[in-house]
Amino acid sequence: MSTDFPFDVVTAEEYERQQVVHGALTHAIRELIDAGIRTDVDDDTAHEARAAIEAVTAQLRGTQRATTSTLRHADTGRPLAWANPAVGLRNAIAPPMDIHHEAGGRCWSEFDLGLAYEGPPGLVHGGICALVLDHLLGEVASDGLTKPLFTGTITLRYLRGTPLGAVRAEAFVERTEGIKTYARGYLGDANGWTVEADGVFIMPAWARGAG
Amino acid sequence: MSTDFPFDVVTAEEYERQQVVHGALTHAIRELIDAGIRTDVDDDTAHEARAAIEAVTAQLRGTQRATTSTLRHADTGRPLAWANPAVGLRNAIAPPMDIHHEAGGRCWSEFDLGLAYEGPPGLVHGGICALVLDHLLGEVASDGLTKPLFTGTITLRYLRGTPLGAVRAEAFVERTEGIKTYARGYLGDANGWTVEADGVFIMPAWARGAG
Repeated sequence: MSTDFPFDVVTAEEYERQQVVHGALTHAIRELIDAGIRTDVDDDTAHEARAAIEAVTAQLRGTQRATTSTLRHADTGRPLAWANPAVGLRNAIAPPMDIHHEAGGRCWSEFDLGLAYEGPPGLVHGGICALVLDHLLGEVASDGLTKPLFTGTITLRYLRGTPLGAVRAEAFVERTEGIKTYARGYLGDANGWTVEADGVFIMPAWARGAG
Repeated sequence: MSTDFPFDVVTAEEYERQQVVHGALTHAIRELIDAGIRTDVDDDTAHEARAAIEAVTAQLRGTQRATTSTLRHADTGRPLAWANPAVGLRNAIAPPMDIHHEAGGRCWSEFDLGLAYEGPPGLVHGGICALVLDHLLGEVASDGLTKPLFTGTITLRYLRGTPLGAVRAEAFVERTEGIKTYARGYLGDANGWTVEADGVFIMPAWARGAG
């Protein structure tokens, strides 16, 4: 299928290298986000910390990629997201979700949502529940992002609060009608589902008739 | 109105101090997130950067707040979010949204969404649109978070892609029926709205009959 999205193809070895080096770097930034929320250091220490962070940022900006295109794995063809705020390898905003694609087309992911995702005390922000479900429904509707699709509509029903900590999300395609794919998903904890989502995903005009 | 949510009251001076010191620290972490996505330094430099970040994290964790409760401004009574991923003063995940409350009850915010919020190339991730709209609708429905409310349902309609960069969001209450508040909101760029949202917010059982 043709696509207008830019992709850089990487070998399995190169991806493995990036996962090790940049996965660790991103994890360190994620811990720093958490520490920044919890810290109660005095003003001088906070200023010192800020200066040290600015120095690292300058060092990292010393050599930048020309583009931040999504990568495509040379063997599997699957996209490897770089900057994506739900799954991006290099994005400290992402929990990250590690998404498993099952043979029947179902997707699932188990991951942790810590203090940086809090809305009401002790509970995940409703908008973060929406972010992870929107992403998972989009992945399942587009067959692991291999088909170009945009979200048309998504409805989220909050059954109860989602406690911070370990969560599980699942999604599957209900049906496809022409250019529309209907997907459904759930987010929950060990005691059951907390949020239900229904999404309608639409094939963009430029991709219709292709494939 | 009674509330079960914990609040630490801070004076205007203390809030001002926190805004200056921790606003700057959080901004520095936000820049680091962006640099981590774009960087193409060699492995040794990446390891060095990671070690420097871990050292800052340890320094910040040296003194931590006992709780991460939301603060309440002593003069205005408005909550000052600490860890919130949409508006939190200390959360580098937050864009952050600086929310303006108008006299008639309407809320609006103008802010930037950069590379860390990207879904499709050059466009904001649909789930990030959901996060900012869920938050803004929640704020307007709860009168600036002064009333305890939980999201019941939210529906997002994506009219077109939202380009990365400067965005504007607005929300208002359509009507209130018993324990349910119906809110509506929009997200868009200089060319008009890109996403519409409708939300139903519900007063929790413990808060009914109070006020």
